[in-house]
Amino acid sequence: MPAWSSSWQLPDQIADVLPSEARHIEELRRLFLDTACSYGYELVMPPLLEHLESLLTGTGEALDIQTFKLVDQLSGRTLGLRADTTPQVARIDAHLLNRQGVARLCYCGPVLHTRAELPHATREPLQFGAEIYGHAGIEADLEAQALALAGLQAAGVTGLLIDMADVRIVSGILAGTSVPAKNLSAIHAALAAKDAVELAMLTAELPLATRTGLQALLRLYGDESVLDQAVVALKDFPAVQAALENLRQLASHIRHSNPGVEVRFDLADLRGYAYYSGTRFAIYGLGAELVRGGRYDEVGAVFGRNRPAVGFSLDLKELVRVLPARSLRAAVRAPWGQDAALNAAITALRQQGEIVACVLPGHEHEVNEFNCDRELLLVGGQWQLVPLSKSGA
Amino acid sequence: MPAWSSSWQLPDQIADVLPSEARHIEELRRLFLDTACSYGYELVMPPLLEHLESLLTGTGEALDIQTFKLVDQLSGRTLGLRADTTPQVARIDAHLLNRQGVARLCYCGPVLHTRAELPHATREPLQFGAEIYGHAGIEADLEAQALALAGLQAAGVTGLLIDMADVRIVSGILAGTSVPAKNLSAIHAALAAKDAVELAMLTAELPLATRTGLQALLRLYGDESVLDQAVVALKDFPAVQAALENLRQLASHIRHSNPGVEVRFDLADLRGYAYYSGTRFAIYGLGAELVRGGRYDEVGAVFGRNRPAVGFSLDLKELVRVLPARSLRAAVRAPWGQDAALNAAITALRQQGEIVACVLPGHEHEVNEFNCDRELLLVGGQWQLVPLSKSGA
Repeated sequence: MPAWSSSWQLPDQIADVLPSEARHIEELRRLFLDTACSYGYELVMPPLLEHLESLLTGTGEALDIQTFKLVDQLSGRTLGLRADTTPQVARIDAHLLNRQGVARLCYCGPVLHTRAELPHATREPLQFGAEIYGHAGIEADLEAQALALAGLQAAGVTGLLIDMADVRIVSGILAGTSVPAKNLSAIHAALAAKDAVELAMLTAELPLATRTGLQALLRLYGDESVLDQAVVALKDFPAVQAALENLRQLASHIRHSNPGVEVRFDLADLRGYAYYSGTRFAIYGLGAELVRGGRYDEVGAVFGRNRPAVGFSLDLKELVRVLPARSLRAAVRAPWGQDAALNAAITALRQQGEIVACVLPGHEHEVNEFNCDRELLLVGGQWQLVPLSKSGA
Repeated sequence: MPAWSSSWQLPDQIADVLPSEARHIEELRRLFLDTACSYGYELVMPPLLEHLESLLTGTGEALDIQTFKLVDQLSGRTLGLRADTTPQVARIDAHLLNRQGVARLCYCGPVLHTRAELPHATREPLQFGAEIYGHAGIEADLEAQALALAGLQAAGVTGLLIDMADVRIVSGILAGTSVPAKNLSAIHAALAAKDAVELAMLTAELPLATRTGLQALLRLYGDESVLDQAVVALKDFPAVQAALENLRQLASHIRHSNPGVEVRFDLADLRGYAYYSGTRFAIYGLGAELVRGGRYDEVGAVFGRNRPAVGFSLDLKELVRVLPARSLRAAVRAPWGQDAALNAAITALRQQGEIVACVLPGHEHEVNEFNCDRELLLVGGQWQLVPLSKSGA
């Protein structure tokens, strides 16, 4: 029988999440939502399905390729399953809330990808994200980074490293030249791959200063000394200098507020930041890239409201993959019965936050999947909790 | 400009959930998950997308029509977006957990429908559900009903009514006759609509006793006296009597454990229970049908493991629609700054569970969307909480 005929086999890179991991994901979900709430971020829930042009206008070709498409029988129009939540939140900020001042929004829900971003990754990440609309100053960038770091630290991620760059550095070097969009994404790819030969080929017809500036980016990665080198190497590009100064301020703040977090720069790396307009950051921990974020002031433009915007997102399934597994919660086993005193005792324990699993009649000798360490027993006419090892069960 | 060209308009019966409602849905989500956890139900997270035959085999035509289909570029196979989570959980019980004993599982996530079930309903319900596998006795039915009622009561739903029936009543009356599947669903629809004329037409060629039995069902709705009437009216159908006795036991238990819940029967109504095999129930409150559940012992058969199964599900978006809106949580406003003492005070408040929204520079005079009732102010060299109305802000 060919493999595809098994009715229980899942599509590639699509998986069920089983109890112990699901519980951990749910804990992380609450942790990130509660942390964001404590910073004043309000929860929104955009839909999984939207008209394709709402999801994709202005977001770049990469997201289009990542998006599953289907037809709405009600309207005959093409819908997309969201592959990224940020453009939806920008739409909500622009049209539904329409606030004059700062809006802080967060979300947590699945996104779907036609192709996984990495060989081990899922095609159904559980995306958590937080975004600030309406503030162009560096304080919004700082708050987004602080919130992301606070969430990861509370989740138990150690060895945190934040990597930063600014998309205005590449655009500042290319300012005044005319590069077709197709070549531009090839240039970004060559920069990210640090492929000097490919980059030279792609930029052969650009002015010498531009070519020299782009080649210089390939060496501009590492600690904060990179910024000093960049100030000299890119002195001919005035727009770049402001971006470098911005990065220096961000780094100084993180050193101050999060002294345990390593700060790095990779000025050539703009992978996966198609709609970003300023600083971008990635946060690494436990050997994995966990968070991506930055500034995307243009993302609401398609919805008619071009507000400043900064935010970040992460995949809780990837986070749980790198964190150590949790141990099972202790539980209580109880007999099943119609006795009022028994059921009152069970209800009271549950309201105190205990897990009480009733043993259904005939299942008394089954192996217990829970970590039941106590049992509810009738002792001297009263229902009492008895350590399970001592009760002989 | 035609309406469809607005890039922000959502598909029909698809909507964003905005902050106040989203916060309430998130609270209900936690409430139902925590209640289920306290009963020993373990969380699972099946994927949104599966091969179509995994999602649909054995579940009936109605679910097929409800399911969005799309093509997996990786495999060329047709995938479905889940319209119901129960068949997925049955697959997990059958193949991944493969436990010999009782398995209690719960889930909470979106499902998508090509057509909404009701004119006001969303096409993207947020489905919570809980299921018990491995126990054929009535105790499993009772536990599922108890858990559903406990969750609704904790959510603040008043005027609860549980409506019950058993799919074995109709199948017991039809036993020994041969009705094509197409006619069978038409008969079910006529029964649910209490359409005696249509029912007579559809059953004209069936034996007289069968026709009389089916017609009798149209009058068998109401309180527990319905069961007494049914025992007499359906005395010629032995399989029906066992189902009636089962319903009587369930009703007696609910009267005992939940005296405030009204118990009703509608023996003709089997709408939306395509894969059910025994008792089915619906719970109403605040004027809406909120929960559907029952026994579906056959649902795991397609996955090679035909275990007894009972469960229920509800749509948290429908629940939040009928519940009174929550008031905003009180929050604290604080200035933005790099001052270490200020940031320590903010962090401490957040860790105590307070919402602290920092006012970013230049936004001091914006209208506040939060219910900020206190402000963090520097008073006598110390950061202190001051009631906001008195501070003059």
